[in-house]
Amino acid sequence: MYFCNVKMKIIIINGPNLNLQGRREAGIYGTGTFDELHSALRQRYADVDIDYFQSNVEGELIDKLQSVGFSADGIILNAGGYTHTSVAIRDAIAAIDTPVVEVHISNIYAREEFRHQSLLSAVCKGSICGFGLDGYRLAVEALIGD
Amino acid sequence: MYFCNVKMKIIIINGPNLNLQGRREAGIYGTGTFDELHSALRQRYADVDIDYFQSNVEGELIDKLQSVGFSADGIILNAGGYTHTSVAIRDAIAAIDTPVVEVHISNIYAREEFRHQSLLSAVCKGSICGFGLDGYRLAVEALIGD
Amino acid sequence: MYFCNVKMKIIIINGPNLNLQGRREAGIYGTGTFDELHSALRQRYADVDIDYFQSNVEGELIDKLQSVGFSADGIILNAGGYTHTSVAIRDAIAAIDTPVVEVHISNIYAREEFRHQSLLSAVCKGSICGFGLDGYRLAVEALIGD
Amino acid sequence: MYFCNVKMKIIIINGPNLNLQGRREAGIYGTGTFDELHSALRQRYADVDIDYFQSNVEGELIDKLQSVGFSADGIILNAGGYTHTSVAIRDAIAAIDTPVVEVHISNIYAREEFRHQSLLSAVCKGSICGFGLDGYRLAVEALIGD
Amino acid sequence: MYFCNVKMKIIIINGPNLNLQGRREAGIYGTGTFDELHSALRQRYADVDIDYFQSNVEGELIDKLQSVGFSADGIILNAGGYTHTSVAIRDAIAAIDTPVVEVHISNIYAREEFRHQSLLSAVCKGSICGFGLDGYRLAVEALIGD
Amino acid sequence: MYFCNVKMKIIIINGPNLNLQGRREAGIYGTGTFDELHSALRQRYADVDIDYFQSNVEGELIDKLQSVGFSADGIILNAGGYTHTSVAIRDAIAAIDTPVVEVHISNIYAREEFRHQSLLSAVCKGSICGFGLDGYRLAVEALIGD
Amino acid sequence: MYFCNVKMKIIIINGPNLNLQGRREAGIYGTGTFDELHSALRQRYADVDIDYFQSNVEGELIDKLQSVGFSADGIILNAGGYTHTSVAIRDAIAAIDTPVVEVHISNIYAREEFRHQSLLSAVCKGSICGFGLDGYRLAVEALIGD
Amino acid sequence: MYFCNVKMKIIIINGPNLNLQGRREAGIYGTGTFDELHSALRQRYADVDIDYFQSNVEGELIDKLQSVGFSADGIILNAGGYTHTSVAIRDAIAAIDTPVVEVHISNIYAREEFRHQSLLSAVCKGSICGFGLDGYRLAVEALIGD
Amino acid sequence: MYFCNVKMKIIIINGPNLNLQGRREAGIYGTGTFDELHSALRQRYADVDIDYFQSNVEGELIDKLQSVGFSADGIILNAGGYTHTSVAIRDAIAAIDTPVVEVHISNIYAREEFRHQSLLSAVCKGSICGFGLDGYRLAVEALIGD
Amino acid sequence: MYFCNVKMKIIIINGPNLNLQGRREAGIYGTGTFDELHSALRQRYADVDIDYFQSNVEGELIDKLQSVGFSADGIILNAGGYTHTSVAIRDAIAAIDTPVVEVHISNIYAREEFRHQSLLSAVCKGSICGFGLDGYRLAVEALIGD
Amino acid sequence: MYFCNVKMKIIIINGPNLNLQGRREAGIYGTGTFDELHSALRQRYADVDIDYFQSNVEGELIDKLQSVGFSADGIILNAGGYTHTSVAIRDAIAAIDTPVVEVHISNIYAREEFRHQSLLSAVCKGSICGFGLDGYRLAVEALIGD
Amino acid sequence: MYFCNVKMKIIIINGPNLNLQGRREAGIYGTGTFDELHSALRQRYADVDIDYFQSNVEGELIDKLQSVGFSADGIILNAGGYTHTSVAIRDAIAAIDTPVVEVHISNIYAREEFRHQSLLSAVCKGSICGFGLDGYRLAVEALIGD
Repeated sequence: MYFCNVKMKIIIINGPNLNLQGRREAGIYGTGTFDELHSALRQRYADVDIDYFQSNVEGELIDKLQSVGFSADGIILNAGGYTHTSVAIRDAIAAIDTPVVEVHISNIYAREEFRHQSLLSAVCKGSICGFGLDGYRLAVEALIGD
Repeated sequence: MYFCNVKMKIIIINGPNLNLQGRREAGIYGTGTFDELHSALRQRYADVDIDYFQSNVEGELIDKLQSVGFSADGIILNAGGYTHTSVAIRDAIAAIDTPVVEVHISNIYAREEFRHQSLLSAVCKGSICGFGLDGYRLAVEALIGD
Repeated sequence: MYFCNVKMKIIIINGPNLNLQGRREAGIYGTGTFDELHSALRQRYADVDIDYFQSNVEGELIDKLQSVGFSADGIILNAGGYTHTSVAIRDAIAAIDTPVVEVHISNIYAREEFRHQSLLSAVCKGSICGFGLDGYRLAVEALIGD
Repeated sequence: MYFCNVKMKIIIINGPNLNLQGRREAGIYGTGTFDELHSALRQRYADVDIDYFQSNVEGELIDKLQSVGFSADGIILNAGGYTHTSVAIRDAIAAIDTPVVEVHISNIYAREEFRHQSLLSAVCKGSICGFGLDGYRLAVEALIGD
Repeated sequence: MYFCNVKMKIIIINGPNLNLQGRREAGIYGTGTFDELHSALRQRYADVDIDYFQSNVEGELIDKLQSVGFSADGIILNAGGYTHTSVAIRDAIAAIDTPVVEVHISNIYAREEFRHQSLLSAVCKGSICGFGLDGYRLAVEALIGD
Repeated sequence: MYFCNVKMKIIIINGPNLNLQGRREAGIYGTGTFDELHSALRQRYADVDIDYFQSNVEGELIDKLQSVGFSADGIILNAGGYTHTSVAIRDAIAAIDTPVVEVHISNIYAREEFRHQSLLSAVCKGSICGFGLDGYRLAVEALIGD
Repeated sequence: MYFCNVKMKIIIINGPNLNLQGRREAGIYGTGTFDELHSALRQRYADVDIDYFQSNVEGELIDKLQSVGFSADGIILNAGGYTHTSVAIRDAIAAIDTPVVEVHISNIYAREEFRHQSLLSAVCKGSICGFGLDGYRLAVEALIGD
Repeated sequence: MYFCNVKMKIIIINGPNLNLQGRREAGIYGTGTFDELHSALRQRYADVDIDYFQSNVEGELIDKLQSVGFSADGIILNAGGYTHTSVAIRDAIAAIDTPVVEVHISNIYAREEFRHQSLLSAVCKGSICGFGLDGYRLAVEALIGD
Repeated sequence: MYFCNVKMKIIIINGPNLNLQGRREAGIYGTGTFDELHSALRQRYADVDIDYFQSNVEGELIDKLQSVGFSADGIILNAGGYTHTSVAIRDAIAAIDTPVVEVHISNIYAREEFRHQSLLSAVCKGSICGFGLDGYRLAVEALIGD
Repeated sequence: MYFCNVKMKIIIINGPNLNLQGRREAGIYGTGTFDELHSALRQRYADVDIDYFQSNVEGELIDKLQSVGFSADGIILNAGGYTHTSVAIRDAIAAIDTPVVEVHISNIYAREEFRHQSLLSAVCKGSICGFGLDGYRLAVEALIGD
Repeated sequence: MYFCNVKMKIIIINGPNLNLQGRREAGIYGTGTFDELHSALRQRYADVDIDYFQSNVEGELIDKLQSVGFSADGIILNAGGYTHTSVAIRDAIAAIDTPVVEVHISNIYAREEFRHQSLLSAVCKGSICGFGLDGYRLAVEALIGD
Repeated sequence: MYFCNVKMKIIIINGPNLNLQGRREAGIYGTGTFDELHSALRQRYADVDIDYFQSNVEGELIDKLQSVGFSADGIILNAGGYTHTSVAIRDAIAAIDTPVVEVHISNIYAREEFRHQSLLSAVCKGSICGFGLDGYRLAVEALIGD
């Protein structure tokens, strides 16, 4: 899908509490960290420029979506708890040009009912959930295409 | 309604993604920018001191409502996506003294169902929606009265 | 928005119980009357032809919307209690050519829950609510534009 | 994840109307066919034994899930319209040993509301939706791991 | 419950608009301030190290919960309006080790219906509501035990 | 309650289809007619001036409520099918001074679910339902008091 | 309706908290007591045998309904708070032969939403609500007929 | 079904906004007019007396249903927007003797959700919807039988 | 609508339990059989090729819709109990080219509430319900047009 | 209840996934198989002819209900996952003459909420749930009576 | 299941209005009495000690559940109308050791909607409903096992 | 808050199943008993007169609330299962003068959904939940104030 001699640019944007990944509720979220994941992805997809951003602040996630959303080739978004409550992030995704792939580490449909609804899915390119940290790799695959 | 020899003070507070106005989804939001609007309003209402503030961060909108809400004569608030989800902004409006006029650029009732409910309207002086950027001028009119 | 050497034509259409304005529940609706309002508006907007109609009968409101809705330049509609229950008036608004501005005197969002939903808003150009009788002036402003 | 000198065995199980893929509603489902997809996947993942099954009959999908669900290494399931209504298929997935990855071609969250709920997700390993036919490749990736 | 020769460490974390305590809606929230409360508590519980933090920003509350939530002995949280809308704060509480006691100044069950549901209670140690500022003292009591 | 040497003035206002009383669905509504009832009531309560009005038009019921609602001593209202759907009639009852007693011939709570809710009860003095035409006599009793 | 030379027998059955009548929330329930009411009714309807029973215990109300419900000519039931929650009392009313008239002192439709639904109305002969203690007299009138 | 040497008598009753047929929203309602349809039907069914009535007033539709509903052989009713809101029209249909066939020009189930429910269908002989003006011919066919 | 010198081709597709027609619940479904109906229709519409298919299996109905849905001129579908539960049949109707007319023998709106919603209507050309077996004739009429 | 010198005829009809009984989720469904159960029942109730049928296909369950439902003396039905979703099976039960006893192995009311509602119970003679495989014996007991 | 040389001890606990069994609504509950049933059961199950208790008082049912619930071998509970409303009885069942079998005489799923939900089922061993008084025998069978 | 030389009088009122405290579901309710608690509280708060009452009967709880509710200084109420269902107890709390503090031993918000709503909280002074038996001590603290 992307045939350019400059590197394709993808950014991973993680929302609230994902900075605790590896330290919290391992039964739900597993034990790998995003540092490890980021390294592995950069190594595996050497011809893709993969950035990483995390914030607990809803508005900072919006700021970031806006700042990269007119130039990056793809965004991988795990909005954490904001997934289920944020019309504002949904509006940001709808406002920008870059396609966004929604990722969830855990299977949100096997958890509390309020996690079953994502306000973001409808405006994303697609969603990937339940595969642990490997879901981020699948999202990269989804963005670079086959 | 206001007969004072000091200038009446009004502030426009815009929420998430409104900084993209003019760049995003023109079919829904139109093409004018807030810079143009602000200029036009200041020129038209020369005897009113019209300020402008925008943030994507819910808490910063609350900070601003609190900081101006005991001294300004009127607040024009477009809380964007937070309109439909923020009890915290509602509480801020209820806590302050300055009357708040709610504005929406698009006709939120003609869009997705989750946009049909505003958590803020009940504690605002009134609401204006669907008139594009002109809604802000109507809000100024509403605040200065006839 | 309207550049014609004939007068722009606007009609105010009021629904049930608005003929009691000034006599009923002053705490909610204020004390001004529509006679006073109509005079004031005609004086202020001398270059606009502003008509007035009121009926308690849902079907007569539809009759009037139909009879003016292909020739007038703007309709200001306060459908009173029918706002929340009338698919038939909604259909009339959708059927006609003239843009309709919805007005409510009181802040319907600060009252009983069944008043929070308007069946009409989605097919109106825009809505103005909570500013007392001044809302009608704002509606005129909205129709004549800036 | 799988280190065996026998080929890993994956089966794609497609539900109702997916036999029309390529012939129906191209705007929603795209134009590729499953024959093409199956060929491409077998070529790309030569060391994986990828089977294919389709039926419009709910009970035949259950029969198939049961017959492969104690021996295959992975199942890729797109239950089509049964996704939103079938407790029986959910029970089959829960009853078998093989992990099931749920795939949807279209972004079901951007379509009618009754498509927003999957009865199956909670008992699947994970879900992938919105990536067109490429979602099946991602499901293979998810099953073979990194 | 705590028998250590180092001081037990408790932190009060207050959410949006609680910085206005004493200035806003006295009929609902009373007139005392948190400065006064903090002083009184530190004097009364001299052998407990009681900290205080307030922010209007949801993400900063999460930041704080994370930064103290693996070392403090107890957290007293009044998340204000975020109580009813924040899955992200709930996730933070679930992620940390320190027990959290939820406090509300007013009786939220005697107010608007949207205040009757707390997204946070289920992951807190317990909840105290309706006792005005005295609820914070009760929360300290609950944390230090009998 | 009423000690005047002029006759107390009560009006019965009947809504849609009540003009068919005695001709329709006798199993539900009984066989007596309003002519007979009116005669009987005027004879029994000779010192009360009892008027009668019926219309199938919602707006005409509102017209009548308004025209007698500032002078009559009591109104007995059976709004028929509008009971369950008319905010406009509710608003008329709230707007007038005369107390309104709601009457239903059949036991509306033993019928279809949409008949279980009356939009009018909350603004009426009281409600009487299920006693057939005798309910009108009870309403007269309720208005003249004991 | 009743032409017998033995006295007609009616019993008033009052549910929880009605023993406090005259002592509690006078704004809602008025100030008269049931002793006064009972005396007045026995005097006014000298040819009717009017009994009185009150209990706060749901099961004792059922016991009483059963014990009089095959011999009395009429029951006047104000089940208080059990009105909105008791399937068991509903079943008792349906099981007995004596017609039951439901009475409420206050206008339950003008109070909290959970009071708007009566589980009992559907199996009662009819309902009377909102007329204060006078509702009991109306119920006697309803039972003795015209 | 009807074997009489007097002409069978059918009346078409159209509700609000159907007088605009041919002028409004052609994409939804088509372009034919009721004058043309009426002519065509009278010509095609020369041995049936086909009348036509339209009103925007709910109560006038009830008046008409009552006036023909004890003598006509069939009524074809398109109640327009009142279909979804009128208990009063439903009661009129239930009260009369003549069978009523419900017709809708557009496919109401493919439009807004509030159009999916008809309060009238349950008391009509049957319903026909989605066939444009041809639905009226089908209704005549349904009434005259095979 | 159809001007071809080859016979127009229509197929009746009946769903579950319709093979029992004439044997089951005559009060609801009448006593005629589909054999009789099919004969009558073929005789009456000699220039139309009318086929008939019935199955109790949801997937076989889908199979049939697919096999005729790109060549037949019209499909008359009574999906029986699947009407209210089958997204899969809905998808099949949406996927094919042939227009589908939905028929129900009984008036489904006068029966249990779960029968009031059809998942199929929105994607059918139109719906006919409540006319007994005659509804199939009306569907033929609807397909061949006037 | 049955006094015939021919053997009473009962058939057990099992729905989807019950063929896995003994192999799946033993914590929920126990470990016995239907072969063992069938043998035990035939031995215990030697004077009853007990048949057994299982299918994963909804339509085949309907086929079987129809084929035995006019001649067998009793049907024991465990419709598995179709219990909660199948109007079609409900219609089949209502259409046939043979009484049907509903059985569930697990206590469906102690599981996911979507299992709490059975569409079938209302048309069955009775329901038995939660007793494991022993529920089938109880159903035989229920059918042969005491 | 129980192999002891002391008699197994079972108690039947009946809730409100079941003391009227045989006298009330025979169409729903049949005509047998509990005296007859109790005799028959004691005769049939001579080696089981079967006790009987009935009360209309919710709290007395709880008292009884508590007093036998740590020593009896089985409880057969028909909580009558409390089935649908009593969290307190549910808590009692959960608190005791003795397994409880829920019985309903009528098919509660074929009656009013509020009877479709049992608050008790989830904490009972199992439920038996719709078999008339014979359900109690089945419950004894369920408790003594096969 | 209370400065009297007579002892302050507080009563603990416990509802259904709380007499089993210490014997039931220790994982939820802990192992302490109310005898131990009562002793400990009387010792700790020697200058307060602390009474104790428990009943499983809803009406007896109301009786007790009424008998102490005009003289005691504080009531600590744990209404157990009635918390979620009793309008009658709510009415009693509203009717009396003594402030009531609601206590729950377990965190009701972390349990079944029907436990998340308390009908009582809105009329209590405040609520304390989730602290085990220590919640009663906190309630005493809340009543005696700081």
